[in-house]
Amino acid sequence: MPPTQQRWDSGRVEAFSDGVMAVIITIMAFELKRPSGPTWHDLTPSFSALLVYILSFVIIGMYWNNHHHLFRATERISAAVMWANLFLLFWLSLLPFVTSWVSEFYKAHLPASIFGVVALGAAIAYGVLVRTIIQANGKESAVATAVGSDVKGNVSVALYAAGVGLAWVSPWIAYGLYVTVAVVWFVPDLRFTRAGA
Amino acid sequence: MPPTQQRWDSGRVEAFSDGVMAVIITIMAFELKRPSGPTWHDLTPSFSALLVYILSFVIIGMYWNNHHHLFRATERISAAVMWANLFLLFWLSLLPFVTSWVSEFYKAHLPASIFGVVALGAAIAYGVLVRTIIQANGKESAVATAVGSDVKGNVSVALYAAGVGLAWVSPWIAYGLYVTVAVVWFVPDLRFTRAGA
Amino acid sequence: MPPTQQRWDSGRVEAFSDGVMAVIITIMAFELKRPSGPTWHDLTPSFSALLVYILSFVIIGMYWNNHHHLFRATERISAAVMWANLFLLFWLSLLPFVTSWVSEFYKAHLPASIFGVVALGAAIAYGVLVRTIIQANGKESAVATAVGSDVKGNVSVALYAAGVGLAWVSPWIAYGLYVTVAVVWFVPDLRFTRAGA
Amino acid sequence: MPPTQQRWDSGRVEAFSDGVMAVIITIMAFELKRPSGPTWHDLTPSFSALLVYILSFVIIGMYWNNHHHLFRATERISAAVMWANLFLLFWLSLLPFVTSWVSEFYKAHLPASIFGVVALGAAIAYGVLVRTIIQANGKESAVATAVGSDVKGNVSVALYAAGVGLAWVSPWIAYGLYVTVAVVWFVPDLRFTRAGA
Repeated sequence: MPPTQQRWDSGRVEAFSDGVMAVIITIMAFELKRPSGPTWHDLTPSFSALLVYILSFVIIGMYWNNHHHLFRATERISAAVMWANLFLLFWLSLLPFVTSWVSEFYKAHLPASIFGVVALGAAIAYGVLVRTIIQANGKESAVATAVGSDVKGNVSVALYAAGVGLAWVSPWIAYGLYVTVAVVWFVPDLRFTRAGA
Repeated sequence: MPPTQQRWDSGRVEAFSDGVMAVIITIMAFELKRPSGPTWHDLTPSFSALLVYILSFVIIGMYWNNHHHLFRATERISAAVMWANLFLLFWLSLLPFVTSWVSEFYKAHLPASIFGVVALGAAIAYGVLVRTIIQANGKESAVATAVGSDVKGNVSVALYAAGVGLAWVSPWIAYGLYVTVAVVWFVPDLRFTRAGA
Repeated sequence: MPPTQQRWDSGRVEAFSDGVMAVIITIMAFELKRPSGPTWHDLTPSFSALLVYILSFVIIGMYWNNHHHLFRATERISAAVMWANLFLLFWLSLLPFVTSWVSEFYKAHLPASIFGVVALGAAIAYGVLVRTIIQANGKESAVATAVGSDVKGNVSVALYAAGVGLAWVSPWIAYGLYVTVAVVWFVPDLRFTRAGA
Repeated sequence: MPPTQQRWDSGRVEAFSDGVMAVIITIMAFELKRPSGPTWHDLTPSFSALLVYILSFVIIGMYWNNHHHLFRATERISAAVMWANLFLLFWLSLLPFVTSWVSEFYKAHLPASIFGVVALGAAIAYGVLVRTIIQANGKESAVATAVGSDVKGNVSVALYAAGVGLAWVSPWIAYGLYVTVAVVWFVPDLRFTRAGA
């Protein structure tokens, strides 16, 4: 098959994923309910909501960034890749739901744990996506080389899984672990750039 | 007309359709209302809602996938194709409405039947879209060959129509039929890939 | 400036417009509130809402279609064109608001009239967009020739303006006029295709 | 790296940004709540909401326009650019929240001031984006030349910051300053076009 055909193909999967992630971000911000009055006191509940929103925003940004790098190196898309991609989008689409829930009940164990379940689902789905892409492109392909051993992916899965369990000890430990994953992805990204990506 | 011009044309119809389908998916997830409290008991109503959401998500994924394959093989777009495509998007845009309704009243006959009406409308609209595309590209075109006899499309229409009626016997039969359609589309897709799409 | 550069330019204006129109369609469908119960009686209010939704859906479809044809013939985009395009999107973005309002109070004069104001605003904005595009591309350009005298655009403006006024005699006259505009655009589109667009 | 690869790269960042901005615009219009009745009196609260919506719409339009010009001249995208872009989108995504709040409590000091905080955040984020892009492309690059000294960007930051403070004297001064920024960006844009962009 000619390369332009393949690139277009990949382009549409990316465009659709971008669309879903763009709407997720805006819908989450939309969940920040308008305060019921014009005073600082009315604004207070929005602060915790804003912090949770920032965490979820960074998670989406992280996936968008990785998704972008992954598909840039991808040459072949198969139907399995498309479904794996939809599986990832499925988990991400649940993020506004748990974000909104945690915003209101951030001191409780269950919401903190379920937030981790959704983040864990997305992290596993991303791993599945990476594997189906490598399967479609071959182990010698540019993608396979670019992805490498995917240490960060595995670490994320482990930290989210720990968060799901440790939320029952304290939700704050869970939040700490979720933020750690975001930092793990965010910081090297910037370093990588300066080194000259 | 030069081929690049034609491809761009098709590209914009696809981009618009992607946009609508991306928003539909996220809006449906947004309908999963935040639980009113932080306990398992508060989360209970979300489980049935989640199952209906998964079904609707797979339906959208199915149409997105088919739409993608269909337009990849399409060379000519006519105004009739654009309106047929909008007709499909119209039915899909009603999916969040019925998904939300079924989520709350999944034990009742009417919502289960109306869900089928919307799914049936989308399936028929997809058939119309396929036919207008073949009309615009000719019976010897790549699309016409790729689509073939469209057995799966006809089976889907039949199963959805059966669901609309049998929902009045039991909503569970209807849900079983709707899930069957999803499986009919999903499974061969994966097989097709392994064979080397 | 090289032609590829120009085409990309136009591409982004189109992509943004597609995004806005895609979200408008889905948001309008989202306004179809879930019935408060599972019976035919509970579903009744949704029927009038569905009819108004269909009208608004066709209006967006109509603009999307025209927008598509217009930009396909456009070679040069100026900042004035971009703002004229945003002016059109502004009016279209008000459509969910009036659609929702008319759905609930379709027997009243004011909502029927305000619906016409928004439709009229969009029609005038589209005229302004056409004129700024012709200004940017020259009167001998492909766009200018393709648009011609824009009889249908002027007729639409007149019919919507009439609807705004006659809604005060009877809302049904207004709705009749709004539907007429949709038919005026929809029918020749299909004819045009068969003749071989 | 080949230029086509780079352009595609930039294309996806733009497409994602377009998606987010398109949804923001439509979500803000969606916040214009349907009037509770069919009379002029019921429509009254919508007028102030409409004015705030128009301001926010112009702000998004302004950023979309600048974003478009900026990325058209950009050749290299780095991870830092992508995160700077997400930082801008983060602030813009808070616009529906403050727009909705100001719509209801436009006579109060706090909402007027917080609106300015969000607008200021977006203006600063835009400045950061410009700087990371210049860093990635070099000071001799086409972007660096096109951006120049960015006087308007600095003026915007100053005016928004003034608005945040002066809202505590009178919200109307703040609104005046926010509108001024919009005019500062809007008017020369049109002039620029006529001169022949």
